[in-house]
Amino acid sequence: MPKVDLQAVPQTNATGYPDHLADVVQGRWYRRLSPALGLSDFGASHVVLKPGAWSAQRHWHENEDEILVILSGQAVLVDDHGRTLLGPGDIAAFPKGEPNAHCLVNESDEDCAFLVIGQSVNGPCHYPDVDMHENGAGNKRRKDGSAF
Amino acid sequence: MPKVDLQAVPQTNATGYPDHLADVVQGRWYRRLSPALGLSDFGASHVVLKPGAWSAQRHWHENEDEILVILSGQAVLVDDHGRTLLGPGDIAAFPKGEPNAHCLVNESDEDCAFLVIGQSVNGPCHYPDVDMHENGAGNKRRKDGSAF
Repeated sequence: MPKVDLQAVPQTNATGYPDHLADVVQGRWYRRLSPALGLSDFGASHVVLKPGAWSAQRHWHENEDEILVILSGQAVLVDDHGRTLLGPGDIAAFPKGEPNAHCLVNESDEDCAFLVIGQSVNGPCHYPDVDMHENGAGNKRRKDGSAF
Repeated sequence: MPKVDLQAVPQTNATGYPDHLADVVQGRWYRRLSPALGLSDFGASHVVLKPGAWSAQRHWHENEDEILVILSGQAVLVDDHGRTLLGPGDIAAFPKGEPNAHCLVNESDEDCAFLVIGQSVNGPCHYPDVDMHENGAGNKRRKDGSAF
């Protein structure tokens, strides 16, 4: 059945961030749609940001295009250009290799839901605001290469 | 600027269908977001279906996953399972190679907008309801291989 029953897709707030950087994403509840729906060309996730939650530490991908669309609620897009309020139907895109680190922050009192598309497997990812680097194998380390 | 200014992206109702199959998509107005936004990992399009418009002739792709989310309005998903009404926030997914031909039909009096993600380059595409086949090179022909 092509219409997606979101309730049937597992939801998690799991993160690969070390504990001291993970507080901001505790309220990020996401469903990985691609494995659940049999898609492999791209990674699609349905994400709910609870009030106060961030979508991620501010980051940019070397090798992964991203596009997202807000489905309900509001979030502030924070990037090198400043702050931009996004609401339902607003789309944001992040071409790979463009070093404009970004994240969404739900500063409202309501949940914000969005759909985001990227690659199924991430490459290297840069986090300018915190001492973390993703080498592309799901292996997050300090910027000097040491393990957390 | 990551927030997409849709008005700055060209909109078209162009189609590669032959005239006798194109009536149903004359009210399909789409914007190809990926080239406009510098994305190459996947093809993303913002589509507005005017009242009465179809998203496509009913079809399925051999080699292309698709996912869409309704942004505003309503459309009926028509596939081998029957008819399913989709509204804002509803997501539908179509794994490549699954021979469940599908399309959206706007049977309402209001525009229906959706975001759809697929590949930038399509492969072979099957149209069970009409005498048309896409061989994967953007070359639509009759099912006996003859040109329109």
